[in-house]
Amino acid sequence: MPNYEHHVFVCSNEREETAARPSCGHERGKRLRDALKDAAKAAGLKHRVRVNQSGCLDQCEHGPVVVVYPEAVWYGFVQPDDADEIVREHLVNNRAVERLRLPESCVNVKSCPHKQA
Amino acid sequence: MPNYEHHVFVCSNEREETAARPSCGHERGKRLRDALKDAAKAAGLKHRVRVNQSGCLDQCEHGPVVVVYPEAVWYGFVQPDDADEIVREHLVNNRAVERLRLPESCVNVKSCPHKQA
Repeated sequence: MPNYEHHVFVCSNEREETAARPSCGHERGKRLRDALKDAAKAAGLKHRVRVNQSGCLDQCEHGPVVVVYPEAVWYGFVQPDDADEIVREHLVNNRAVERLRLPESCVNVKSCPHKQA
Repeated sequence: MPNYEHHVFVCSNEREETAARPSCGHERGKRLRDALKDAAKAAGLKHRVRVNQSGCLDQCEHGPVVVVYPEAVWYGFVQPDDADEIVREHLVNNRAVERLRLPESCVNVKSCPHKQA
């Protein structure tokens, strides 16, 4: 199996508290990555799915942020408690978790309902 | 433009020198990420392409390793000098750089011609 069925990237970028934009956070990102990794392993997905930390994914107002490739599904405001649902629904059953999904109107746009003016 | 046309992840995992498997390396990964970021910016790809560092991509014997999504093209043994070619050929012209591409027989397999017995 040459490619991962799903490759999950969890932002763990940390900005200073005084920065103009918020950030997902190093520790928060790590905890979320660990929760997703553990849930994926428990679901028997080792070697089929990979979960990685990443640098800033630039959707900072929606953090903690996760993106899943190759399907390019973006999740925002994700908590470690959401890991089981993401793994079960998305990574096992190939159904994106709509309640956590970032709408297209929020991904890579200069303004969206979540951004402060 | 809701999704990145190409999302590039550069492994920057660092293992101790005595580890059983090699690693892409934090500093090497960062230099490569910077070279790719600079080349992408110079090519006018800002906001259309994103280049990120990532944790261990688990293709450790082929490092420094890069993966480009959503097309899931894997590159191995990538050097900062390769950044311009990857950006020009792959990210601008949508032609994978075959000389750097990891063959399927190397991606996510237990053994390949590059792995020591």
